[in-house]
Parts: sequence; structure tokens; C-alpha cells
Amino acid sequence: MKPRKIAIQGIEGSNHHKVASEYFGQGIELVECMSFTGLVDSLLEGKAEKGVMAIENSIAGSIIPNYNLVCDNGLHIIGEHYLNVHHHLMALPGQRLEDIRVVRSHPMALLQCGDYLKEKPQMTVVEDADTAEPARKIAREQLKGVGAIAPALAAELFGLEILASEIQTINNNATRFIIVKTVNKEWPRDAINKASMRFLTDHKRGSLATVLNVMSDCNLNLTKIQSLPVIDTPWKYSFFVDVTFEAYAQFEKAKSLLAIMTEDFRVLGEYKNARI
Amino acid sequence: MKPRKIAIQGIEGSNHHKVASEYFGQGIELVECMSFTGLVDSLLEGKAEKGVMAIENSIAGSIIPNYNLVCDNGLHIIGEHYLNVHHHLMALPGQRLEDIRVVRSHPMALLQCGDYLKEKPQMTVVEDADTAEPARKIAREQLKGVGAIAPALAAELFGLEILASEIQTINNNATRFIIVKTVNKEWPRDAINKASMRFLTDHKRGSLATVLNVMSDCNLNLTKIQSLPVIDTPWKYSFFVDVTFEAYAQFEKAKSLLAIMTEDFRVLGEYKNARI
Repeated sequence: MKPRKIAIQGIEGSNHHKVASEYFGQGIELVECMSFTGLVDSLLEGKAEKGVMAIENSIAGSIIPNYNLVCDNGLHIIGEHYLNVHHHLMALPGQRLEDIRVVRSHPMALLQCGDYLKEKPQMTVVEDADTAEPARKIAREQLKGVGAIAPALAAELFGLEILASEIQTINNNATRFIIVKTVNKEWPRDAINKASMRFLTDHKRGSLATVLNVMSDCNLNLTKIQSLPVIDTPWKYSFFVDVTFEAYAQFEKAKSLLAIMTEDFRVLGEYKNARI
Repeated sequence: MKPRKIAIQGIEGSNHHKVASEYFGQGIELVECMSFTGLVDSLLEGKAEKGVMAIENSIAGSIIPNYNLVCDNGLHIIGEHYLNVHHHLMALPGQRLEDIRVVRSHPMALLQCGDYLKEKPQMTVVEDADTAEPARKIAREQLKGVGAIAPALAAELFGLEILASEIQTINNNATRFIIVKTVNKEWPRDAINKASMRFLTDHKRGSLATVLNVMSDCNLNLTKIQSLPVIDTPWKYSFFVDVTFEAYAQFEKAKSLLAIMTEDFRVLGEYKNARI
């Protein structure tokens, strides 16, 4: 069987790589992308079949730009996966912690290691497009004095040594990833028990409450809600909402009601709940 | 009159400085902090009277870590201010765009100039704790080949030249800032028409809808809602909600109901709506 081409943000050894392996198992070929926009392009251009995209974590909340990428490019969410993220500071073998003058990683990883880095003022923090990429660069170019904050998988793949492990500020940092593709043919109705939606409402008192009442009446459980002011349109809000349900028919009923009650109603994806 | 000490994230010339000037007018002394945690510390230690903190923008959504800083340190939101953010690439006078090999700025500014930077692969992007700080550093150390993405005010203050102006991806990028202090004595009841709250609900169907119905019944207008999974407690969600109202009595009624209906109900601030 031909390996499935899966686009990830970053390179092998990154958290996106870990998620791709855990979700798809063996037999995948990674399409490495250095930005989320690049990942979307690789799907639209047919260079990859499916993509893995971080969408929210317990520390920083939703990655709104990624929601917008999904929405604006007509992608479909066909799955989700949770990963407990662990960050480690790694460098060339033989380097000591006090040798490290520059620490490179993805901005989100740097943010999540804020407390650790705060206590190391001698280290200059440099942002990269990925966690694993600076680790690979350190190994390839034999860079001394430089450390990368990356998953343990990167140290293993590129032969680096972990100088400080588990340096994330909050230990229970579950990051939610979504699996996206350009078409929505993935699951039979009875396999679907979660959905992601986007809609707009007017700034009228109680308009969101009315929408949530309908969802509740249709037996949908809200697992996420996020409002976002609509750029250029004062008093208009867009909402990103995730719901779980027991029967697809419940969601179907809610869909037809919400399509009437809200503006620009869009189902971003219908998939299997990964968190039971 | 003694100037009021106002803590900002970053240094003079930053967007936080602009907000402090616009909100407080003349007669303030800036307490420059290189992180939001440092800003909170300066308030708790009495080094500053009030602080200015970015809290959300139309592109990245809420800055959840700052909500948590307010909540966990018992700060009070006593005001809000909106700033349309403009980003400019600046460098030493005489430098040309093609001389610039490194671009430094705050991660949020770098994110907001993503499209521009994507077209300049020759520029290495380096993250700093502030927008204005790298601009000052370029001027002080006469750094060639280095550019900073910062407000026009920084170019003016530090004598730099703007090489590319208005390089933000989305032009109408209103950022919302909050004004915080350690005590909640600021406004008489009849001046207050907006409030920020945080509460927890159980993952029971319709529990949020019920809460929103109460708010609507009390004539509160929802201007923002954001759910966040509670770390370490599966199926528990915290919500950050902002509401506006016409009479304080309406909010007072809602408060007493929500305190009973939700868990860990907290009013993060009661203040004047800055957006009419």
C-alpha cells in the first residue's frame, strides 16, 4: 500500500510528527511545512492528503489564526487528537547547561517554558518556525552554545543530549490537534459524535443564549466556545463552537435550526470525539 | 501633583506606552516591565499604581495567560482601551531594506506581520520581549543589518528610519488593553457599565445556556465569551465573560444569581465601556 502523505507543521521529531504517528500509525510519509499557511497550501495543491494542525492548549487557549485558516480555505476537520506536550532543552553531546547562550524553539514552546527561561537570563531566546528544526540544525551544523527546546523524539532522531527535561511551566499541558483535509468524506453518520461550527450573531441581547438553548434542546453538549469580534463590522461577533452528541440525528436537527437562526453558519467538521 | 506611576509591558515607544498616554494623558511616570509577570509583580510590590496590559486582538483572540495573571493574582480591571495597532519596520538611518538580515520584535507583532515577513525569506526573525526595546537597542548600539518592527513612536524617540510602513497583515487590527490595579476602588456605581467575570460550570448539558439566559433576563449584553478547559479537571470548564449593561442594579442582580449558579464565580473588574 502506498504510504499516506500527511502534512505537518514543522519537521520530523516535532510534536506534530508525534501526533501524526499516534493518529495514523505506521505507513505515513511526512510532508514537512514550516508554517500553518504552508500546510494549508500543501493540502490545496494536492501535495498531501491530510494535515495535522495544533488548534488549542490549556495555557494559551485557542490558536485563532488556525481556525481562520480552516474556515477561509474551506478545509474540513475530520478528526482530533490530544497530546500531552513535554518540552526538553537539548544541545550537542558534551555541552553543559552553562555553555548555552542561545535557546531556539517555536514561540508556543518558548511561551510554555516561560518560568524556566525567566530564571536563565544568560540565555537569549530566538523564535523558530518549529521545535524540531533548530534541534536538527544544531546537530547538522555542530552548533555549540545553542540549545533547542523540543520533544525527546528530536534528541533521539538527531543525536542530541537533553540538558534539562520537562521544563514546561504547567505539567498537564494537553494540546488539541485537528486532522484536516480538503473534502468532507470520511465517516459514516453513526461514527460521528462531535462537530465544530462557526457562525455569526448580531449584538442583540440574548442572541447567543437563544442559540445555546437550541443546542441544549437538541441534546448537544458544548465542549468549547469562543467569541471573536468580526473585523470591520462593529458589534458583530463570530463564534467557534464545538459540540458532542450521541446520535447524528440530534446534530442534524440542530444544524437546520442554526442555519436559520445565525448568519454565515458553517460546519467546520464532523468527526469522532477523541476524549471519552 | 506627583506623576502617577503606570506599569507597562515593554519600554517607552511601545504600544503599551501609547495606550498609557492616551488613557491617562499627561503627568505619568512609566514603570517599564519586560514581561506581563513582571508587570503584575510591580503592582503587587507597590512600585506602580496601575498597569496597562494587552488582553485581546482581532487576529489572535484572547491573551489567555494575561486573563490568568489577573485572576490568579487578585488584580482588578478598572478600565479598558482600544488601540488600532500599526507596525513599521525601522532601522538605522541610511540602511536600505536589502541590508536588513535580522528582524526583531515582540512575538505578537511578528505574528501580525506574518504575510510581509513570509515574502522576505532573507530576514531572520528574532523574538524579543517588546517592540520598542529592539528599536532602542539598534539606536544605542548602532546595529547595522538589524531591523525592528515597532510603532512609529519608537522611530521618532530613538531616531530610526522607517523602511517599510504599515506592514501588518490585517489593517483593522484593534487591540484591547485593560487597566489593572490591586484594589477595586475606582468608580462610583453609576459610572460603571461594563464588567468582566470568570466562573466554572460542570459539563452538564445546557449549563452554560442556563447561565446566559440569566444574564439575558438581567438585561446584560454579552460582548465576549471564551471557554477554557480546567487543567487537571476533565469536563470542567472555566469561562471568561464580558458584559455591558445600562444600570448597575441589573449587573448586581445577575451577580447574586451567578454566584449561586456557577462555581468559583469571580468579578475580575467593573469599569466603563470604552467602545460606544
